[in-house]
Amino acid sequence: MLLSLIGYDPAGAWTKTMPGVQDLAAWKNPSGITWINVEGLDMPEEINRLAEIFGIHPLTVEDILDHTHQRPKVEEFDNYLFVAFKVIRHSEGFDFEHISLVITTDTVLTFQEKPGDCFDGIRKRIMNNAGRVRRMGSDYLAYAIIDAVVDEYFISIDSLGGEIEDFEDRALDEKDDTFIQDIQDIKRKLLKMRRAVWPLRESISMLIHFDSKLVSNDLAPFLKDLYDHTIQAAETIETFRELIAGIMEINMTASSNRLNKVMKVLTIISTIFIPLTFIAGVYGMNFTFMPELGFAPAYFIVLGVMALVALGMVLFFKRRKWI
Amino acid sequence: MLLSLIGYDPAGAWTKTMPGVQDLAAWKNPSGITWINVEGLDMPEEINRLAEIFGIHPLTVEDILDHTHQRPKVEEFDNYLFVAFKVIRHSEGFDFEHISLVITTDTVLTFQEKPGDCFDGIRKRIMNNAGRVRRMGSDYLAYAIIDAVVDEYFISIDSLGGEIEDFEDRALDEKDDTFIQDIQDIKRKLLKMRRAVWPLRESISMLIHFDSKLVSNDLAPFLKDLYDHTIQAAETIETFRELIAGIMEINMTASSNRLNKVMKVLTIISTIFIPLTFIAGVYGMNFTFMPELGFAPAYFIVLGVMALVALGMVLFFKRRKWI
Amino acid sequence: MLLSLIGYDPAGAWTKTMPGVQDLAAWKNPSGITWINVEGLDMPEEINRLAEIFGIHPLTVEDILDHTHQRPKVEEFDNYLFVAFKVIRHSEGFDFEHISLVITTDTVLTFQEKPGDCFDGIRKRIMNNAGRVRRMGSDYLAYAIIDAVVDEYFISIDSLGGEIEDFEDRALDEKDDTFIQDIQDIKRKLLKMRRAVWPLRESISMLIHFDSKLVSNDLAPFLKDLYDHTIQAAETIETFRELIAGIMEINMTASSNRLNKVMKVLTIISTIFIPLTFIAGVYGMNFTFMPELGFAPAYFIVLGVMALVALGMVLFFKRRKWI
Amino acid sequence: MLLSLIGYDPAGAWTKTMPGVQDLAAWKNPSGITWINVEGLDMPEEINRLAEIFGIHPLTVEDILDHTHQRPKVEEFDNYLFVAFKVIRHSEGFDFEHISLVITTDTVLTFQEKPGDCFDGIRKRIMNNAGRVRRMGSDYLAYAIIDAVVDEYFISIDSLGGEIEDFEDRALDEKDDTFIQDIQDIKRKLLKMRRAVWPLRESISMLIHFDSKLVSNDLAPFLKDLYDHTIQAAETIETFRELIAGIMEINMTASSNRLNKVMKVLTIISTIFIPLTFIAGVYGMNFTFMPELGFAPAYFIVLGVMALVALGMVLFFKRRKWI
Amino acid sequence: MLLSLIGYDPAGAWTKTMPGVQDLAAWKNPSGITWINVEGLDMPEEINRLAEIFGIHPLTVEDILDHTHQRPKVEEFDNYLFVAFKVIRHSEGFDFEHISLVITTDTVLTFQEKPGDCFDGIRKRIMNNAGRVRRMGSDYLAYAIIDAVVDEYFISIDSLGGEIEDFEDRALDEKDDTFIQDIQDIKRKLLKMRRAVWPLRESISMLIHFDSKLVSNDLAPFLKDLYDHTIQAAETIETFRELIAGIMEINMTASSNRLNKVMKVLTIISTIFIPLTFIAGVYGMNFTFMPELGFAPAYFIVLGVMALVALGMVLFFKRRKWI
Repeated sequence: MLLSLIGYDPAGAWTKTMPGVQDLAAWKNPSGITWINVEGLDMPEEINRLAEIFGIHPLTVEDILDHTHQRPKVEEFDNYLFVAFKVIRHSEGFDFEHISLVITTDTVLTFQEKPGDCFDGIRKRIMNNAGRVRRMGSDYLAYAIIDAVVDEYFISIDSLGGEIEDFEDRALDEKDDTFIQDIQDIKRKLLKMRRAVWPLRESISMLIHFDSKLVSNDLAPFLKDLYDHTIQAAETIETFRELIAGIMEINMTASSNRLNKVMKVLTIISTIFIPLTFIAGVYGMNFTFMPELGFAPAYFIVLGVMALVALGMVLFFKRRKWI
Repeated sequence: MLLSLIGYDPAGAWTKTMPGVQDLAAWKNPSGITWINVEGLDMPEEINRLAEIFGIHPLTVEDILDHTHQRPKVEEFDNYLFVAFKVIRHSEGFDFEHISLVITTDTVLTFQEKPGDCFDGIRKRIMNNAGRVRRMGSDYLAYAIIDAVVDEYFISIDSLGGEIEDFEDRALDEKDDTFIQDIQDIKRKLLKMRRAVWPLRESISMLIHFDSKLVSNDLAPFLKDLYDHTIQAAETIETFRELIAGIMEINMTASSNRLNKVMKVLTIISTIFIPLTFIAGVYGMNFTFMPELGFAPAYFIVLGVMALVALGMVLFFKRRKWI
Repeated sequence: MLLSLIGYDPAGAWTKTMPGVQDLAAWKNPSGITWINVEGLDMPEEINRLAEIFGIHPLTVEDILDHTHQRPKVEEFDNYLFVAFKVIRHSEGFDFEHISLVITTDTVLTFQEKPGDCFDGIRKRIMNNAGRVRRMGSDYLAYAIIDAVVDEYFISIDSLGGEIEDFEDRALDEKDDTFIQDIQDIKRKLLKMRRAVWPLRESISMLIHFDSKLVSNDLAPFLKDLYDHTIQAAETIETFRELIAGIMEINMTASSNRLNKVMKVLTIISTIFIPLTFIAGVYGMNFTFMPELGFAPAYFIVLGVMALVALGMVLFFKRRKWI
Repeated sequence: MLLSLIGYDPAGAWTKTMPGVQDLAAWKNPSGITWINVEGLDMPEEINRLAEIFGIHPLTVEDILDHTHQRPKVEEFDNYLFVAFKVIRHSEGFDFEHISLVITTDTVLTFQEKPGDCFDGIRKRIMNNAGRVRRMGSDYLAYAIIDAVVDEYFISIDSLGGEIEDFEDRALDEKDDTFIQDIQDIKRKLLKMRRAVWPLRESISMLIHFDSKLVSNDLAPFLKDLYDHTIQAAETIETFRELIAGIMEINMTASSNRLNKVMKVLTIISTIFIPLTFIAGVYGMNFTFMPELGFAPAYFIVLGVMALVALGMVLFFKRRKWI
Repeated sequence: MLLSLIGYDPAGAWTKTMPGVQDLAAWKNPSGITWINVEGLDMPEEINRLAEIFGIHPLTVEDILDHTHQRPKVEEFDNYLFVAFKVIRHSEGFDFEHISLVITTDTVLTFQEKPGDCFDGIRKRIMNNAGRVRRMGSDYLAYAIIDAVVDEYFISIDSLGGEIEDFEDRALDEKDDTFIQDIQDIKRKLLKMRRAVWPLRESISMLIHFDSKLVSNDLAPFLKDLYDHTIQAAETIETFRELIAGIMEINMTASSNRLNKVMKVLTIISTIFIPLTFIAGVYGMNFTFMPELGFAPAYFIVLGVMALVALGMVLFFKRRKWI
């Protein structure tokens, strides 16, 4: 477990890393905002002590520690807001990390399972006093964190969009089983994304309508904006699902058309030669009295007849547009 | 970036084009309505200055400049309404342009990415004092602009409707892979249209229910009318999607029926000749003692038997309705 | 354009036809109810004058004249209610006519595109003082008109129901492409019906909840009844859509089963004769030393073996239930 | 038409049958509850007189007499509640009978199209003073009647459930067209059931929320119970529809697998013999100079080669898991 | 029938088993909470006596005794809350047991059909004073019981998830009919689960919003947590249904691809040999005058031609990517 603290007020900002909560009291920022980021949930006693310091309800601690498989949600308590959501980790394939967020009047606590996150941009903005973050309260910091997560979603959605476009190009030609497996893979990813995005959308909507004293009125347009983003993410995912259904339809129709074409050509070849073989069979019979056999040009006539039959069938198939 | 201004009051109207915002103050219409149309979003500083003049919130500026991929929406601020929507550009294939609209008491600002739009009709009506536009407020101008956009939707929807009718005629005969690709193309266009129309419908509904001081009561029937139009557009799109599903069903059934017919005929030809070839094979055997071989008319009898077998099979297939 | 007026009060009723609105004032019924039916929308100036007389909003006039492709709707104005809906014209195939209805305190105006309608029953009831119509207000007349339209819907729905039952009987045997086209045709009709019925249902629900002074309380049970009818129409349409989906499923399964049976029989015939032909082929070889050839009964033995092979295969196929 | 009356109060109960309404007044129960059951709707004048006696609105009479095809509904009038619903008649296949119910303070009227119903249990409970019915008001009687109808639904649903289980067992083996027809038949029955159950559920929910003086507070838990039952019926129907979709899926996959297996075996037989026939064909050629022909053991070598080819192909197919 | 009582207050806990209700009064805990667990519903009189003691409504008794097939529900009475739900019994396959729960101020009654349940953890926590249970009221005990049931759901859902993952691995290779049956089996289980989880979710939501005096405010976060769990269970089930649809799609496509490949190879073999057999047939004809026959190297030339034809066809098929 690693605690990284960032404290700031409009005048300045500092940063500090510590392995446990024992020194925390000394470092808490009396006037400004403190952001405490906890990496690793392997020391439950430490987190329980942290919870005690900030007056966090035991059920919330349970949610932070044990329910990392839970769906995104937001809960309002007397002295803090609790938000849980998923963030995509690009570094490790298409995997989700559960992040818990506790917002009090002057502190934001984030709990992550593993080191490494997508919040470096926020950290830089705090340290360099870029943007509004230093002038605003803890609620804005929480907003900035969720906004960074939703931006991550859009990066993933864009990369899925690229993959889907590739699939669209391959849909007509691809005939491998792996194609359909790859598509099911994308579908599974979209399903995962949807399970992360939809409840987050609900949660942000609840944040907007909570009317909590922890969320200032100035934050309303920002939250609305965030809400619009999650809706757009959700809608893009639904559109992708429809596109994929269309791709599978094209692929299956194309593959069935391709097979049908092959089978038709093969069957036509057989169909042309089977009557010819029959004719050859007739003159291969060993009857004593077969007048044609003795007739000198008969062989060439039969060959000609065969050629005519073959030609006739080809023309017939052509006229019927079978070839 | 190009600013084109149109100022008007019931008494008169003027028009002016300028490359930047520096001369804007001199031209603002004190008594009447001013419509400022911004073409091109490549000069963010200028747009920021414009936003400052009209008291536009930084988040709205962000929406105007950066979020041109966002879905349509409407937002109410203290001193203005913000509406964002998509307009179809026929000139460049089936492409959408994002348009932002800011409505204040006496000014309407429109922000477009590219030159060229569908608002020339409104401009003409203002200059020639046709219709109500000169007698009404900035809210009516905004309505007229959105109405023109929705009319554009209907033109696109009608042209898609025509394409779909063509597809209906081709559904029974078309056997190319391109047919299904063309249909998927239409489906993609409808999907795009839907993503533009549905949120616009919501936005107009919100405009109706905002009860903002920026929207006068006189506008209510116009907005309701507009709302009805967007609903109709949305419903037509849904109907088209059902029609297309039906077309694909016809096409696939017809194509599978066609193939089945071919395969059946080919298989029947083979099935008729294979037993005949067998008979010929029997009398082609080289056994020393085959009594039939020496019997003079045997050859003709066998040929007759063959003809009878073939005829019998054809009749059998006919009676079973297989041919 | 043709104006037909019917005036009535509990005491009596009269009827009058006129080509324009110039004589209208003279004929307006001071004490009773007047029903003005306008046939043909080809003289916009006349209709504008009519609108002026009854104080109809320009947007409503636009809806009456130009938006005959619009979906059904109801709108409340200060001095009148506007209802627009579709009526099925049996005389001209499955086609819809747009009818606009304006209800004031003492007048009902109906606007139809073409001559001929389904309101003769109402006219007769007014003239003969049958039913309640003469004793009730203009709102009841409007109800009676919409009720007649919904009754027309049920006639169409019943006839579609009959067609669907026919399809159910044909589903197992029909193998033509036209079958699926006919079904798609029914589906298209149902789609059209649905687009007429659903918004009408909404409109009637709005009429019930408007609480307008133009709709008296006595009408409530009638409107509720009408609402129930439209719901029933809508539900029947949905049921028909499900039935049709079932019919297509039966037809496609039956047709694929039929083809499969044919192909199986044909393939079985081939499969029986191919090994026999091989045996014949073996004894057709010209090797000098083939001991069987000289053995006198060999020919008959081979024929017997062939018969046994064929019989064995037939039995094998039978036991496997392939035949 | 037959009127059967049952009168009861906590102290006693009597029953009486009469062919018309003329003697009704004499028999009406002044202190207790009267249940008037009307069988047969063939005498509209009598029913109109009955309606007059109980102050029933003409629209309700119309619903009772003419709209027996209508969907279930509930309507509140000043002096009575009107409930219409469908009951399944097992005696006549899967057919529905429309029943109308009028509830006043001290009387319950039921109108049935045909003799025979599922209310004998209620009659017995009234006569034998079993259960609560004698101690409760007319609203409880109405509840008991609807409850009996819903119980009938469950009997039908259970029997459909049994049929569906049978189908599940047959799904893998059945290959007849009748199977799919039988399933479509069940689907049609479920559709019918759903159209009876869903609106009844709505109606009961409305009864609960009407807050009518005709429904006492004591009835609330009973109505809630009834509501739970209709929800369960509706959900079971939906589950059945999903099960049937699964059964059809199994059946179609199994039938296509079965056919594919047959075709594969047949094709494999052909594929093995066709090369052998070719070899035989080669040595059946009549070239003067074919060195192998004169070589004594050549015949047996060729037979051996043929056996090897056949064996090789069988092994190849086996290794590829095609057999 | 077996009654097991657990009584507890913050100070201590005791447990007692009794076969009937006669001794119950003596054992009721005056100050603390009593949990009465009834196993077996075979003695209705005893349960009726129990109901009398706790003032349970006859309809609730009916629900407990007879409606064990009912869907989960919650009902509020004056002096108690009634909750009914399903619990999965792993010991007996995938089967559900109906459990009824009655919550009064100081007692919780649970009614189970069969012995054996998943509440041993709660019993241990009560006896060992672990967790909060001893310090909280009867509502918390009820919460703990439902929570244990929902935890059981997650165990089942996890095991289904494992099965589904297995199916995902097998989807590409499995070709047995049993595969699709196994999948339908999972679908049926999910359907069952859904029917247990969805109404329970509703019930818990109702418990939260009842605002009953039987549910203390302290319980709110626990109920919310429980609600979140049931939502997650419901959503996981829906996701599983989508995954299964995907698996069936992969399996069917893979199986059809596999068959198509086999049929194509077989058809190609036939197609190559049929023309060769025809050539052999030609030179097997017995015409007297066939110049090639006497030409010494003709045999080898023909063999070469045959080889070339075969090679040519193979190359042609290869170039067309048919092999």
